[in-house]
Amino acid sequence: MSEDDGDRAGFAAASEDKHRERMQRKKELIDRKVARATIERGVLVVNTGNGKGKSSSGFGMLARSLGHGFKCGVVQFIKGSFATGEEAFFRRFEELDYHVMGEGFTWETQDKQRDIAAAQAAWAVAARMLGDEAYDFVLLDELNIALAHRYVAVDDVLAAVAARPPRQHVVITGRGAPDALIEAADTVTDMRVVKHAFKAGIKAQKGVEL
Amino acid sequence: MSEDDGDRAGFAAASEDKHRERMQRKKELIDRKVARATIERGVLVVNTGNGKGKSSSGFGMLARSLGHGFKCGVVQFIKGSFATGEEAFFRRFEELDYHVMGEGFTWETQDKQRDIAAAQAAWAVAARMLGDEAYDFVLLDELNIALAHRYVAVDDVLAAVAARPPRQHVVITGRGAPDALIEAADTVTDMRVVKHAFKAGIKAQKGVEL
Repeated sequence: MSEDDGDRAGFAAASEDKHRERMQRKKELIDRKVARATIERGVLVVNTGNGKGKSSSGFGMLARSLGHGFKCGVVQFIKGSFATGEEAFFRRFEELDYHVMGEGFTWETQDKQRDIAAAQAAWAVAARMLGDEAYDFVLLDELNIALAHRYVAVDDVLAAVAARPPRQHVVITGRGAPDALIEAADTVTDMRVVKHAFKAGIKAQKGVEL
Repeated sequence: MSEDDGDRAGFAAASEDKHRERMQRKKELIDRKVARATIERGVLVVNTGNGKGKSSSGFGMLARSLGHGFKCGVVQFIKGSFATGEEAFFRRFEELDYHVMGEGFTWETQDKQRDIAAAQAAWAVAARMLGDEAYDFVLLDELNIALAHRYVAVDDVLAAVAARPPRQHVVITGRGAPDALIEAADTVTDMRVVKHAFKAGIKAQKGVEL
């Protein structure tokens, strides 16, 4: 039995009084933290790392935002040549502007000038959303890839994000987020791969990856 | 300039021929990997770790699955007392069975017996979905919390997942995923917090956390 298992068994065996006491302490701690978090404003969220979940988490937040009746914008920087489930799903909503701008992954096109032009066109759409207070939530999917390739300048992104409407939420995804973007962000998650079905010979699956 | 910055500048300065050559090699490598990944079956995805994105990624995959016309099921084990954006958003879809079973976080209820009963009721609904081949995609949101507290037995979950219809995808979220579940999973992501807006005094925001 590992130490961790021991902890858990101990937890399960705790008497109900002890449980209540422990949970009361936890509740007090959390209530204090919640009471300290009083600022209301748009946040910049960055999902990076080499694991699964960066884009799908962005699309989950998009669903939340649509659930609140928010006006939302999406720009997909890279996946333009893919017919993805999220595109089929989200395109039906009127309160959402959905732009698929990339022309596929860069190793598919093998044409640097075309990639740069596609990334710049995508960024022009994104910059317009970031400058428009009608948008409550903007998802810039795989922008980090365009930044890592220097197809879009990180300084342009930082300036546009800093000047955006104060209540607008922005989510930027993709591996290799630049340090300056992480510095500027409010919430950053490093999504680390522990294991991936693809490495075990399983094709990308509809509803999970596609 | 960091070594990484130098790499990136070198990448940007590469001639177009070199770019094409590099991307051709990359494409060959990736095409070979894709060619090796031939297995088609339902996958078990686990999102764990202390960072943001575990549940939202699950809901993003749900959106993808709905985009493909899949019959989907969701059981929320913990967030029952919250009115979340994703609930408001997803409840409108007929091809989705949406069950919010938890009665709020355990430190809110402070009543162990009530928590156990709620978790067991949620698990009964989940087990029914895992046994029903009508479901193409099943999201068990925050089940890991119920497992860590031993309100649901990990062996019951492993048995139900192993016996599920072969094409059914299952996504399980929550921090502290048990080792045995990680072992059984096809794809596991450890979502690590780099920074979080909440710690900087920003309230949980609609469309992002809620």
